[in-house]
Amino acid sequence: MKHIVDMAWTDKIAFEADMDGHKVIVDASEEVGGSDLGPRPKKLMLASLAGCTGVDVVMILKKMKVNIEAFNVIVEADVTDEHPKHYNKIKVVYQFKGKDLPMEKLEKAVKLSEEKYCGVSAVYRKAMEMKTEIRIVE
Amino acid sequence: MKHIVDMAWTDKIAFEADMDGHKVIVDASEEVGGSDLGPRPKKLMLASLAGCTGVDVVMILKKMKVNIEAFNVIVEADVTDEHPKHYNKIKVVYQFKGKDLPMEKLEKAVKLSEEKYCGVSAVYRKAMEMKTEIRIVE
Repeated sequence: MKHIVDMAWTDKIAFEADMDGHKVIVDASEEVGGSDLGPRPKKLMLASLAGCTGVDVVMILKKMKVNIEAFNVIVEADVTDEHPKHYNKIKVVYQFKGKDLPMEKLEKAVKLSEEKYCGVSAVYRKAMEMKTEIRIVE
Repeated sequence: MKHIVDMAWTDKIAFEADMDGHKVIVDASEEVGGSDLGPRPKKLMLASLAGCTGVDVVMILKKMKVNIEAFNVIVEADVTDEHPKHYNKIKVVYQFKGKDLPMEKLEKAVKLSEEKYCGVSAVYRKAMEMKTEIRIVE
């Protein structure tokens, strides 16, 4: 199977694509010559990872009948100082809120996503160091 | 420097983040239990790449005083059949429209982005095969 994304240059240094029927815009800040019409393109790498593994974990926990009240996937990435400025280390924090959440099930769901299902993790892991943290908050 | 993205679970299997002041939503199709509120998360990997290298190329061509009328970055990615379903081969097509465009300058701009400036290319190249094509259309 192939996935194709066609991004068109629309303004100064902004680009836009139709993705699955939804408009996605990327742009740079005004300081560097953009118009801030959308997020910075590189950061979409992090949204891609957070969304991919987040969806997995929600689906797995539902099958396990674990009820979560709130869930955030926080991706913290280190950017190199030198060009090409790229991510060379990523920490993924899975932050859950809920009553009497069973840590071992949360860990199992996260592990299944990271090792078996999440295709974004699979690519990034080949290119950089990846760490995981699971947090339960009140 | 660190980049941080915090995606919150908002609905069924949809996630949302505020990125550089812009709302980014990812979701799955209704067939797999989502509500199609946004694009599929994995595909954002491709938008990230297209936007990153596209911005570089536009800025470099401007410095070179090359006038382009239209420009699309089309990313074609092969997805593996087995879990974790991930991209294992990517072709980036740089499609330009303009009068008497100088191919050698287009090639130089693309090469500079791919080898020196684009931090997304730099990561993906460590993890998979990447190809480039430059097209000039009427």
